Amino acid sequence: MIVEVIAVGTELLLGQIINTNLAHIGSRIADLGLDAHYQQTVGDNLDRMDTAITTALGRADAVIITGGIGPTQDDITREAICAATGRPMAFSDEYARALRERYATWGREMPESNLRQAEYPEGAELLPNPKGTAPGLALEHDGKLIFALPGVPPEMYLLLDDYVLPRIKAKAGIDEVLVSRVIRTWGKGESAVAEMLGDLYEASTNPSMAFLASNGEIKVRLTAKAPTAAEAETLIAPVQAEVEDRLGSLVFGADDDTIETILIDLAKERGWTVGTAESATGGLLAGRLTAAPGSSEVFRGSIVAYAPDLKRDLLGVDDVTIAAGVVSEKTALAMAQGARERLDVDVAVSVTGFAGPSGETPGTMIVAVATPEGARAQTLRLPGDRERVRTYTVTAGMHLLRLGLTGDWWGS
Amino acid sequence: MIVEVIAVGTELLLGQIINTNLAHIGSRIADLGLDAHYQQTVGDNLDRMDTAITTALGRADAVIITGGIGPTQDDITREAICAATGRPMAFSDEYARALRERYATWGREMPESNLRQAEYPEGAELLPNPKGTAPGLALEHDGKLIFALPGVPPEMYLLLDDYVLPRIKAKAGIDEVLVSRVIRTWGKGESAVAEMLGDLYEASTNPSMAFLASNGEIKVRLTAKAPTAAEAETLIAPVQAEVEDRLGSLVFGADDDTIETILIDLAKERGWTVGTAESATGGLLAGRLTAAPGSSEVFRGSIVAYAPDLKRDLLGVDDVTIAAGVVSEKTALAMAQGARERLDVDVAVSVTGFAGPSGETPGTMIVAVATPEGARAQTLRLPGDRERVRTYTVTAGMHLLRLGLTGDWWGS
Repeated sequence: MIVEVIAVGTELLLGQIINTNLAHIGSRIADLGLDAHYQQTVGDNLDRMDTAITTALGRADAVIITGGIGPTQDDITREAICAATGRPMAFSDEYARALRERYATWGREMPESNLRQAEYPEGAELLPNPKGTAPGLALEHDGKLIFALPGVPPEMYLLLDDYVLPRIKAKAGIDEVLVSRVIRTWGKGESAVAEMLGDLYEASTNPSMAFLASNGEIKVRLTAKAPTAAEAETLIAPVQAEVEDRLGSLVFGADDDTIETILIDLAKERGWTVGTAESATGGLLAGRLTAAPGSSEVFRGSIVAYAPDLKRDLLGVDDVTIAAGVVSEKTALAMAQGARERLDVDVAVSVTGFAGPSGETPGTMIVAVATPEGARAQTLRLPGDRERVRTYTVTAGMHLLRLGLTGDWWGS
Repeated sequence: MIVEVIAVGTELLLGQIINTNLAHIGSRIADLGLDAHYQQTVGDNLDRMDTAITTALGRADAVIITGGIGPTQDDITREAICAATGRPMAFSDEYARALRERYATWGREMPESNLRQAEYPEGAELLPNPKGTAPGLALEHDGKLIFALPGVPPEMYLLLDDYVLPRIKAKAGIDEVLVSRVIRTWGKGESAVAEMLGDLYEASTNPSMAFLASNGEIKVRLTAKAPTAAEAETLIAPVQAEVEDRLGSLVFGADDDTIETILIDLAKERGWTVGTAESATGGLLAGRLTAAPGSSEVFRGSIVAYAPDLKRDLLGVDDVTIAAGVVSEKTALAMAQGARERLDVDVAVSVTGFAGPSGETPGTMIVAVATPEGARAQTLRLPGDRERVRTYTVTAGMHLLRLGLTGDWWGS
């Protein structure tokens, strides 16, 4: 089955917004194992939209149109579908009434132009849009499926998942369910993780295995197909267990877990408070540790000692260590120990280093973690520009802190 | 003149990457005042690429293709142009030699597959690509222009500006130059800035005036058209002067200036050092102050006192003030004064507040600045989720610090 997506909107042609809808719908179509050969973008112009829809109907089995179904005069996707299919425009009294009631609930008068949204090409079904006033449309024409969806991404996502994909699946005779589980790891690169799982990857058919790298983390995604979600999960479970067992402390979470919330949970479990001492990251590590709500239960504060003398005055690093060079593991360890004392925390993570201005030479960044159980430092040499080096270091700091909280960093 | 853009790549159809090239090229075409009616995206498939190019040639005067000109087997844009125009493939010995020499300079052997990049549809010109090995292509066919560009954005941008747009301009008979100047402001919303410039906006034809909002900053863009850049700049100068005069201390820079570098310059001018004291922003303000190279010349450090007792122990905020509630202007001012002393800096900016977990209630954030000339606090009520509230507050902190450094915050 071939699916074609048409994005409608002059603002897209003018480059005023980047079109993320095409990629989103494209990936959902691909997840179903269906084909897409073309995508089109067209402005708010009746003739050209007619051409785009007619072209798509000539070569695809299902056409998904996004945009142009709002209440304003340039929202003419409904008219274009009528033109391309030769159908007259109908009017839904029921939807008009529902719209009026919705406005009444909000205590506002409905602009009459909104009634355009109760119009539909004859034979189409209106798809309720809980996040907006423009309903989606679904129409079967000459054995092909036509859908019209809002251009606003959150509204579009909802209608796509709730109405469009199930109907396309049914039409394509896909009666299986896809379930994905993501195992989140940090500490080794994509190729090293792939190597550790080499034979599992080779053997993986259902569930299939894929590797995704983002911001220094490597995600292992397992996707299973089965008649029901429960059966798909049963297929995933033993492979997931084996992957987690092999990757050991590289694994920090699953699915939508984030390292920010994992750290809060780990610290709470141990009853430990957390702080940071930062130089080259300038407070960004503390900023990220406080990104999740609930961080105040474990995070107490940070000392950002950018100037060398503040490393002495605020963190108690001794002059000999500073004089020997502040980009050293010794300085990082002293900063972490100093932070434990001055911030009165159980665990401190520290960063010192040289992020570099330009990316010409790799940055040298040192992260240390000190807990009641031990202290350890690690030197990172990172390519890329200043921003990238600092961002990657913050992520490394979060994960080395995790290993300090679990105790994995001290032995094993 | 009508221009059509075709993006090539199966990965685009699969939604593995978001296509930013279409928006970029679209906006550059629109800047020239030229029309775009359609955009197409097509996979790495010869027949379908042929169809896409043939369709575009049937309805546009110039066709820009991005992607599919690399060295691998699925890079078949060259072949597709041959198919759509009925031209044979030629081979550039000269480019092949240049490629070999380039690899020799790098001390690496050239993979033979790279020679594909020396192929070109007969009659096409090879456009040198300083950032990559794949040259662009320019071809005039039946009075229409065809361009093939790399899909990698930085390579594409360069060839677009250096070769494609000048030729499209020449073909369209556009002999004028467009020059834009951006005036960067902070402190009032888009509608307030537009109101302050209302009559100038109404009267603006050449230069034209546009307003752009991003991350709390409002940019005023002046764009002039003239036979030469110097003449365009002469048209812009008096309008720019009037805009800057009216907006006064809202204006902080022009064109590519950033508040980060402006602050370093201002502090250096006054010979002042800078530090921060943060609670709700958790170090992000210090993180942003240290984002630009050279920040160590003025920035000394930060105390992130997330826990109330650290506001007392590390910043010297008194217990009575803390007990009265840490989300207060009094606390913010005491934090800033404490930071001046403890960090031994001339100027400190502080943040305390409640960012909220969910965006259901607006965040309340307080920023204070203390300098040798005075101290002042401002309370901000910000909508949005925790991340948005914190990000906006960091920007506000940067700008209030700017007003403290210039003295504009104390009176005038």
